[in-house]
Amino acid sequence: MENINIDLEQAVDESLEKILNLLEEKQYFKARDEICQYNAVDESEMLEEVIDEAGIEKAVILFRLLPKATSVDVFSFLPTDDQLAIIDAITDSETTYIIDELDFDDKIDVLEELPANVVDKILEKTPKHERKLINTFLNYPDDSAGSLMTPNYISLKKDWSVAEALAHIKEEGMDAETIYTCYVKESDRRLIGIVSLSTLVTKDDNIKIKEIMVDDYVWLDVNDDQEEVADTFKKYGFLALPVVDKEHRLVGIVTVDDVLDVMEEEATEDIERMAGVIDFEDSDREYLDIPVWKHAINRLPWLLILMVAYIFTGQIVASFENQLSAMTCLIIYMPMLMGTGGNTGSQAATLIIRGLATDEVDLSDTLKILWKEFRVGVLLGVLLSLFNFLRIVFIDGETIAVAMTVCLAMIFIVIFAKILGSMVPILVKACKLDPALIANPAISSISDAVALTIYFVVASLVLGI
Amino acid sequence: MENINIDLEQAVDESLEKILNLLEEKQYFKARDEICQYNAVDESEMLEEVIDEAGIEKAVILFRLLPKATSVDVFSFLPTDDQLAIIDAITDSETTYIIDELDFDDKIDVLEELPANVVDKILEKTPKHERKLINTFLNYPDDSAGSLMTPNYISLKKDWSVAEALAHIKEEGMDAETIYTCYVKESDRRLIGIVSLSTLVTKDDNIKIKEIMVDDYVWLDVNDDQEEVADTFKKYGFLALPVVDKEHRLVGIVTVDDVLDVMEEEATEDIERMAGVIDFEDSDREYLDIPVWKHAINRLPWLLILMVAYIFTGQIVASFENQLSAMTCLIIYMPMLMGTGGNTGSQAATLIIRGLATDEVDLSDTLKILWKEFRVGVLLGVLLSLFNFLRIVFIDGETIAVAMTVCLAMIFIVIFAKILGSMVPILVKACKLDPALIANPAISSISDAVALTIYFVVASLVLGI
Repeated sequence: MENINIDLEQAVDESLEKILNLLEEKQYFKARDEICQYNAVDESEMLEEVIDEAGIEKAVILFRLLPKATSVDVFSFLPTDDQLAIIDAITDSETTYIIDELDFDDKIDVLEELPANVVDKILEKTPKHERKLINTFLNYPDDSAGSLMTPNYISLKKDWSVAEALAHIKEEGMDAETIYTCYVKESDRRLIGIVSLSTLVTKDDNIKIKEIMVDDYVWLDVNDDQEEVADTFKKYGFLALPVVDKEHRLVGIVTVDDVLDVMEEEATEDIERMAGVIDFEDSDREYLDIPVWKHAINRLPWLLILMVAYIFTGQIVASFENQLSAMTCLIIYMPMLMGTGGNTGSQAATLIIRGLATDEVDLSDTLKILWKEFRVGVLLGVLLSLFNFLRIVFIDGETIAVAMTVCLAMIFIVIFAKILGSMVPILVKACKLDPALIANPAISSISDAVALTIYFVVASLVLGI
Repeated sequence: MENINIDLEQAVDESLEKILNLLEEKQYFKARDEICQYNAVDESEMLEEVIDEAGIEKAVILFRLLPKATSVDVFSFLPTDDQLAIIDAITDSETTYIIDELDFDDKIDVLEELPANVVDKILEKTPKHERKLINTFLNYPDDSAGSLMTPNYISLKKDWSVAEALAHIKEEGMDAETIYTCYVKESDRRLIGIVSLSTLVTKDDNIKIKEIMVDDYVWLDVNDDQEEVADTFKKYGFLALPVVDKEHRLVGIVTVDDVLDVMEEEATEDIERMAGVIDFEDSDREYLDIPVWKHAINRLPWLLILMVAYIFTGQIVASFENQLSAMTCLIIYMPMLMGTGGNTGSQAATLIIRGLATDEVDLSDTLKILWKEFRVGVLLGVLLSLFNFLRIVFIDGETIAVAMTVCLAMIFIVIFAKILGSMVPILVKACKLDPALIANPAISSISDAVALTIYFVVASLVLGI
């Protein structure tokens, strides 16, 4: 047993180092032998590094030396950007070969990214019925169940016996994306039931499919959003789900491995939106592949909106200018009160936005959430105020009146921020928008303005200025 | 076909309404018939709502009326809190029945949450060899591969033929968590290869297992963290992975459905940490089930740490007190500069933290990231300054010198915040800690302090105060 106690990742790293050196010395065949020891996923990860470190020219030489079957597998696991770079560098006939050999869903993914004239050239050489299928798949909206699915599934007839079904699977199995769930269709292509391979291999040979098929299965609509698709997989824990059109005709299946990527993508989108970064192209390009001006454009809108919000905050400060110049010590506590308001508000907003995304809470929980955040706000406000009171009186040496002002303001600010932070996402959700879109920076800047107002009003009342 | 064009979710909601009314009228049998139309996942979701809305007493009456086999399935899909509430309300013998019937991995999950004396009582009645196995599994650290795995897999011998293997699967299949990947073990329990069911059903009956088994498979160590487990599944797209101990003996398997939950959990943990919320119990309790004081404790540490940081910010303000009272118009722009610094810093930090979590970037990209964020910072700083210059001169009616001060400070602050936000997560990662732990609020508060310093220094230089 070769692989016992060898850390695969470490081996990959060491081989990569070797390969880069070999490419440097133009020992391409030796580099090829080194990379070929691994599985396609790791090979493609190594090729990705080679493109980054040694440049696309050397990477393409190495890619061309891979066994033909391997090269297609490796290609299918590369990130889109690198796939396009390779297609750019190889001949048309090489491209056609690779695209032909790819699994159907990978083929669609690549074709979607290629320029129209390249796609046309490839489709010219494709048999007519497949060309039609490809065109149908290319038309499903991005991020829909239709764009995730593959047409390569095993379909069975309801009158077949288990033995006939197993013989059919033996014949067709190698081309299917999964053989673990098989689909039973009427002659008009309507889906009427599903049978798992585990049922088939544990039943007697002469039982009919219609007797063992499950007919209250869960299905997806071609237009379902990929987020719904992921939620359905998560809820039921299936390995594959059938996708049907308006007439309930089976048009494809989605398998769980594609859903893992969707889940990661959706979480990334939520996280970035919460930090005020909007990916306008909705692309799956990686951080380093996005050009500087695109990064700037993705981040600019929220910064500009918030800057306008700060005009009002500035005006609040301006309207208290006289009081502040009369008692400049009050300025010292402005950053703390604003910062704490923003931070407590984002905490609440984050918990609620995530809770809504994972179905832990929903709109019917609004009052429960309000009551909970109010109490959390009171508790935190009092605790933080106690700490501050001691600090202001004993460390800063300010008067009790100043300490009272800051602490009272702090309690109100924290309570307000918790309520604001928890209720705004719910409001956004009630308007049928993605709660993550109301970024945390927005919560902070609203609570900044309110925090200052509370502070100055409390100061006027307590200090009589 | 009953289920065509019926929206399952809507049907569940309507039935739930009916059930709550029936329970209100004490028509328990009718409520049972209503709930029994659905699959176990939806039934358990409905029971969860019944516990929330109608109380645990009525829910337990309904639960007891479910067919025995169904009740175990429904129980297995309930959240931990509700499982414990039901165990609390039913008799010891009912509890023992349910625990006995649960799949092994669900059993371990429930036992882990029960008080020790209840576990002891249940284990007393368990056969000795299973008791030993349960105790071993209970000892694997939380969130490790060991805690996710199940011992119910199909194991084959290398000298068996395909026909023998299939016969074995037919016999054992019903108890296994998956039959789609089978594991080939030596007599000393060492794992030597894997065979997929799709290979078995597509090969001839008399081929030997050792000829078709894959021996460069990917495996997990019992002590691997669940995040690593999820990453491995995501990378290779497998349905199940074998888990081995130090001697490479097969101790269990992890299946992809359990990994979907882990991915959601890990994303939630990252998102919460980035907002400065730390779940000290590391529990999977839902938002509404966490008591107010626990919520407060989870959020307090970062608020306190940041409050200490704001003492320094306050001191920076204090040291410029004279300049500020000489030119109070400078105070007006403090919130904007601090806020923008914080927001741009969090944007950068979020992108890098997420990039590190999804392997889009790693430590070797540090210089590339630095250079990219520097340029993004310059671009955004200049754009935002242009906007501000116009506003300060034409709307606020301040002098060009004041506008220059604010705009110069803005450019420096944005550049600084982008670099700070992108480099701190990398530094934390280099120290082998979770980058998400350095919450965004921390980035904001550091950049607040630096923003004010930059602002006041620029003001001194430009305005000569």
